[in-house]
Amino acid sequence: MTLNDDELKRLDAYWRAANYLSVGQIYLMANPLLREPLRPEHVKPRLLGHWGTSPGLNLCHAHLNRVIKARDLNMIMVVGPGHGGPAAVANAWLEGTYTELYPHVTRDARGMERLFRQFSFPGGVPSHVAPETPGSIHEGGELGYSLAHAYGAAFDNPDLVVACVVGDGESETGPLAASWHSTKFVDPAGDGAVLPILHLNGYKIANPTIPARIPEDELLRLLEGYGHRPIVVAGDEPAAVHRALAAALDDALDEIAAIQRRAREDGATDRPRWPMIVLRTPKGWTGPKEVDGLPVEGTWRAHQVPVTGVRTDPGHLALLEDWLRSYLPDELFDADGVPVPELRELPPSGTRRMTASPHANGGLLLRDLELPDFHAYAVEVASPGRATAEATRVLGALLRDVIAANPDDFRIMGPDETASNRLQAVFDVTDRAWNAARLPGDDHLAAHGRVMEVLSEHLCQGWLEGYLLTGRHGLFNCYEAFIHIVDAMFNQHAKWLETSRAIPWRRPVASLNYLLTSHVWRQDHNGFSHQDPGFLDVVMNKSPEVVRVYLPPDANTLLSVADHCLRSRDYVNVIVAGKQPALTYLTMDEAVRHCTRGIGIWEWASNDEGLDPDVVLACAGDIPTLETLAAVSLLREHLPELKVRVVNVVDLMRLQPDTEHPHGLSDREFDTLFTTDRPIIFAFHGYPWLIHRLTYRRHGHHNLHVRGYKERGTTTTPFDMVMLNDLDRFHLVMDVIDRVDGLGGRAAHLRQRMADERLRARAHTRLHGEDPAAVRDWTWPEAGR
Amino acid sequence: MTLNDDELKRLDAYWRAANYLSVGQIYLMANPLLREPLRPEHVKPRLLGHWGTSPGLNLCHAHLNRVIKARDLNMIMVVGPGHGGPAAVANAWLEGTYTELYPHVTRDARGMERLFRQFSFPGGVPSHVAPETPGSIHEGGELGYSLAHAYGAAFDNPDLVVACVVGDGESETGPLAASWHSTKFVDPAGDGAVLPILHLNGYKIANPTIPARIPEDELLRLLEGYGHRPIVVAGDEPAAVHRALAAALDDALDEIAAIQRRAREDGATDRPRWPMIVLRTPKGWTGPKEVDGLPVEGTWRAHQVPVTGVRTDPGHLALLEDWLRSYLPDELFDADGVPVPELRELPPSGTRRMTASPHANGGLLLRDLELPDFHAYAVEVASPGRATAEATRVLGALLRDVIAANPDDFRIMGPDETASNRLQAVFDVTDRAWNAARLPGDDHLAAHGRVMEVLSEHLCQGWLEGYLLTGRHGLFNCYEAFIHIVDAMFNQHAKWLETSRAIPWRRPVASLNYLLTSHVWRQDHNGFSHQDPGFLDVVMNKSPEVVRVYLPPDANTLLSVADHCLRSRDYVNVIVAGKQPALTYLTMDEAVRHCTRGIGIWEWASNDEGLDPDVVLACAGDIPTLETLAAVSLLREHLPELKVRVVNVVDLMRLQPDTEHPHGLSDREFDTLFTTDRPIIFAFHGYPWLIHRLTYRRHGHHNLHVRGYKERGTTTTPFDMVMLNDLDRFHLVMDVIDRVDGLGGRAAHLRQRMADERLRARAHTRLHGEDPAAVRDWTWPEAGR
Repeated sequence: MTLNDDELKRLDAYWRAANYLSVGQIYLMANPLLREPLRPEHVKPRLLGHWGTSPGLNLCHAHLNRVIKARDLNMIMVVGPGHGGPAAVANAWLEGTYTELYPHVTRDARGMERLFRQFSFPGGVPSHVAPETPGSIHEGGELGYSLAHAYGAAFDNPDLVVACVVGDGESETGPLAASWHSTKFVDPAGDGAVLPILHLNGYKIANPTIPARIPEDELLRLLEGYGHRPIVVAGDEPAAVHRALAAALDDALDEIAAIQRRAREDGATDRPRWPMIVLRTPKGWTGPKEVDGLPVEGTWRAHQVPVTGVRTDPGHLALLEDWLRSYLPDELFDADGVPVPELRELPPSGTRRMTASPHANGGLLLRDLELPDFHAYAVEVASPGRATAEATRVLGALLRDVIAANPDDFRIMGPDETASNRLQAVFDVTDRAWNAARLPGDDHLAAHGRVMEVLSEHLCQGWLEGYLLTGRHGLFNCYEAFIHIVDAMFNQHAKWLETSRAIPWRRPVASLNYLLTSHVWRQDHNGFSHQDPGFLDVVMNKSPEVVRVYLPPDANTLLSVADHCLRSRDYVNVIVAGKQPALTYLTMDEAVRHCTRGIGIWEWASNDEGLDPDVVLACAGDIPTLETLAAVSLLREHLPELKVRVVNVVDLMRLQPDTEHPHGLSDREFDTLFTTDRPIIFAFHGYPWLIHRLTYRRHGHHNLHVRGYKERGTTTTPFDMVMLNDLDRFHLVMDVIDRVDGLGGRAAHLRQRMADERLRARAHTRLHGEDPAAVRDWTWPEAGR
Repeated sequence: MTLNDDELKRLDAYWRAANYLSVGQIYLMANPLLREPLRPEHVKPRLLGHWGTSPGLNLCHAHLNRVIKARDLNMIMVVGPGHGGPAAVANAWLEGTYTELYPHVTRDARGMERLFRQFSFPGGVPSHVAPETPGSIHEGGELGYSLAHAYGAAFDNPDLVVACVVGDGESETGPLAASWHSTKFVDPAGDGAVLPILHLNGYKIANPTIPARIPEDELLRLLEGYGHRPIVVAGDEPAAVHRALAAALDDALDEIAAIQRRAREDGATDRPRWPMIVLRTPKGWTGPKEVDGLPVEGTWRAHQVPVTGVRTDPGHLALLEDWLRSYLPDELFDADGVPVPELRELPPSGTRRMTASPHANGGLLLRDLELPDFHAYAVEVASPGRATAEATRVLGALLRDVIAANPDDFRIMGPDETASNRLQAVFDVTDRAWNAARLPGDDHLAAHGRVMEVLSEHLCQGWLEGYLLTGRHGLFNCYEAFIHIVDAMFNQHAKWLETSRAIPWRRPVASLNYLLTSHVWRQDHNGFSHQDPGFLDVVMNKSPEVVRVYLPPDANTLLSVADHCLRSRDYVNVIVAGKQPALTYLTMDEAVRHCTRGIGIWEWASNDEGLDPDVVLACAGDIPTLETLAAVSLLREHLPELKVRVVNVVDLMRLQPDTEHPHGLSDREFDTLFTTDRPIIFAFHGYPWLIHRLTYRRHGHHNLHVRGYKERGTTTTPFDMVMLNDLDRFHLVMDVIDRVDGLGGRAAHLRQRMADERLRARAHTRLHGEDPAAVRDWTWPEAGR
């Protein structure tokens, strides 16, 4: 017997206390200890919160505390059924953490009343597990990411055990279903362990759940198929469940220790069958069995607030009071409302408390990356626009050395595309993490690789979030179009960061860095399905405090931007860069100056000589920059009297007013660059309306004409792609001619020639299957600056 | 032995022909039959395409043809590894379908040359399975949705068998992992069958795949855990694999027939263990074994183009020629390049050919929905803004009768929220589809329910896409914030529709209808994670030909919009509507007129009497409309001399110029509504910049001031949510006062009062946990129109 009677009694008391505090948060705004009979005015006017999952979470928390103490474990808990916010908060308060972080919520009657009142109350705390919740790295609103977050936390934390309660509801989601396969990516020697606890309480809002309604044999096969050894704990009689769960946890933790010992001491390299727990207990366990004649405990009716008429229906009020008193609060809290000593002694202390673990407030553990001097990777640019480099390949060399210098707190995630995205230099110093079978001929697979590749953008994102939130660094490289797969996860992470910034005890974490390559203008071969630059629009909807978008035009600017992003904190940085050979424009020093400003006039390409130009050609993104420069060279050749200014934008946020975004230009700065009255032809990487959205308040906006991707795509050639979207050099020249007044006959002639060039280029492409060589091989005509 | 030697020989010949045609598409632009020695100029200048998966797909297609003929099956094939476009096209050409649909691509040497040349060639066809591909309902670009599409096709098609080749790469994705659980939602009596063929060729672009690298026992447990009986076929010796695959298919199809007979004739109600096939063959099977000393066949190097230097390296050219000739083309095609009679006779004929099935061109089978007259569900509106209704509950009654009238071609999908979204009237006539265990107390679960609830937005979307593309109708109801989970799937479906519209033989299908409710302004209780109206921004990036967004302000307008959307074709319709009790404004006749125009002046709320107003208050969305009207009533009470015009927008596309969207207003129409010189205060449901993006070219744009959700959210009350975002009535009044010149002292006084009201409302909320009653119970003050 794992538990003796006394231990069982104390564990059960702790569980009752957490359950009492959970119910109290949902219902009460006064009389927290029921020291007087419950009256309607003690109850909140709006009853919000989720009871159903709370007793199960409380059960897990209490039992995990037991094993933490018994084994001196370093453990955190990821709460998949995040709607059970009351449970997470209750345990933080019981453990004392809540009061340490929020001193006005004292661990006594007065604090308990505050704790209850603030829950799901205006000005209070959310009903879900959230950044405000001590001990959490996992937002409990949108479901499906708990297990990926748990693995992200465990990577490179060999001494950490991450307990992850997986809800049976969320286990129906795709991201969660894929996350089980993380077993093939965790290294028992170098990584920590994840202990999944699949909690089958059987119901979602209105329906049963799939895993609870398939035969147990089928469920166990599924979990074994995921690579686990499941241990089942089931019941609805507390003492029996306490004993079974305690035994199961001991079994699981013994095995985790044995697996790690085998790998670390004996050098075992086989993939272990990690233990996990299947916990089958009633939804809303210990809550009302029946309300108004309908069964509640153990059904979907227990999901949220099981008794709702409490302020108006005396029967409901009595039901609530009986329910609360069934936990015997007078045994649990002393006269001042302080948890009795036996309860206070049960949890571990200090940072061993899961609610106080620094791993769940990763900024506490964050070390600056050792970053090599990025200048060392610069490509030589003797003259702008004359030679080519593959920007991401150049970045790959920097990333290789970042990996080498930071062997245990930097990882690169990507869906099987790290080499395709030309970052393969990283494989000089590391491998791809892979703990399934290996065969001769495999390319850089190893149990502890720093590169994580899986054909699931959800897993890449979820792992990286977990890794960052526990105080490490990373980069997610992805085909631009398919990053939309994680739009929703990005949204939730951005919201997490924004909320965290306002919580004093949450320390800044490393930014989430996206490198989007294989982008819209170079997916001509893969076709329409691979062409979508719209992630930028999703990103720009989030708080300006949190999001940054960079469009470096060439290799050296990419180096400078990447260095900046890797040093930053608490942002989401999106970098869009090409992987194909592309012209280079700026020396490293010039690149640094340009990226520091984020936007600037390229004087070597302009001929306005610091005076008022006739037209401004602006560009953001590598291909728009190329086409703009090619257009400028045509204009300068054929209409030399036209004064052209070229403005390049690296930091998209610079376009916004400074009142809207911290990077925004003042109106005066904007006007100086773009003028207030000259036509601006803006060639943009993404959907053109994004530029309008950023600039509609600017003085020159009525002169602004934007070209970008307007959802015209197919399988064709690179130049045909820009032609399809009127972003090509010839069309940009036509745009200029159409918008600058008084250019006369030579311009009209040039315009016609440009239209002819477009037809010729298209005809050539259709005939030969490739772009005309003159377009393909174009370089900036004048050497030197 | 399932196959006799002669059958095997013919099957193998067919397979060789399809493989030959696949390689030809990737490489050749001339000399398609190799009737002369291969020379560099016969080879395309840009080699694009994916060979690796093609031989496996060809193998499946050939074998499925055998069983279709042998059993007279009605079958389609979903090609999960959609990069294998060459295989899908090759089979369509071999079966004659390609020539029927594209008559210039004749089934002879000349047509073969065209077939080869057009593949991945400018002006040609994509390298992936796409709308252009006969027999496909599944875009092969973004991976992970094949199995969900297959189930969507099978629902309510009791005589259809959907073979679904699942790639081992895509099986790492979340959506695919969740899709296996579709076994719990398919009804063997009323639905067709899905036959998954998990094709383990072992590799992605650069890595092995998870399912190919776990022990077979573990894989089989996983598949059994998903509810299947897997049948393994493995090998790299063609004859043996032919025999094994033929036997496996016979086994599987015998069992499918037996399962269906048991359910349909014997009334069996247990959930069957559906058979499936695990096919383990080498990647790039029959291709080059080795190139430049590196192994290719059976490795990730076979993924795309295995031999690349063909135009410059004579050794590579010879390798390609040997490879092509290894299929013995002279045995397969006659002197004119026509497939020899034995090949032509092998496939089934007419619509039994998978490439010619009307199920894969669902518009051919589409019937108009039987729609009840939506007027019958109207709520009575004696006077605008005086009484309330729950808009989605009213819609639920209409949907109930749509379901009753269309028992076999209309389904509602949703992640466990149909009742939460107040559509529960549908359960008067149907149930939730559910074929796992049922228990007493379950709420409307049945094997053949018309409502499909699973906690996976991916599955809801994927099932619905498959259902619509095979010629049926449906609706996806979802919490607004979480629809972002399927952003990427929406993008791909919109692209599919846009491409399909330009393909003459693709017949229009029913629109994909989203009902987004539990929206940003009514997720005050669930908090920040549940607040995100940004799906509209994602939608608006897609082609204007395809997307429609509606924001009905009340119950009757929702009925009118829903009726319109259910009748429409080839669109994605997004309807945002509230589920909470909300004021009603328009009688049914007025609602129809308003929705038909999509935008209009609400004269009963305006006091400009058809003359030039001093200010225009515009609104889109139920809550913005409420706050606007409350602001207008304050203005009319306190500043009666101010001439106010109220414009309500239902159809967001009306705001765009008519040059940008078919629904767009002309400038003259826009100016008539909004004026060119009066301040416009626009209260919008979503992110405010979306309105600027739609209107930046309008004359009155410089006077336009938009309020909307600016990413300020938390757990609070409904009115506090609008206050946090400055969308509340008091702030709108302040906005008017700030922007209308010459209002004088009373206005300044009113402005101060409004600011005070805001403070009071916030204080009340923080104290009492609910909005002030005066705000909560506000109605339009004047009865009558």
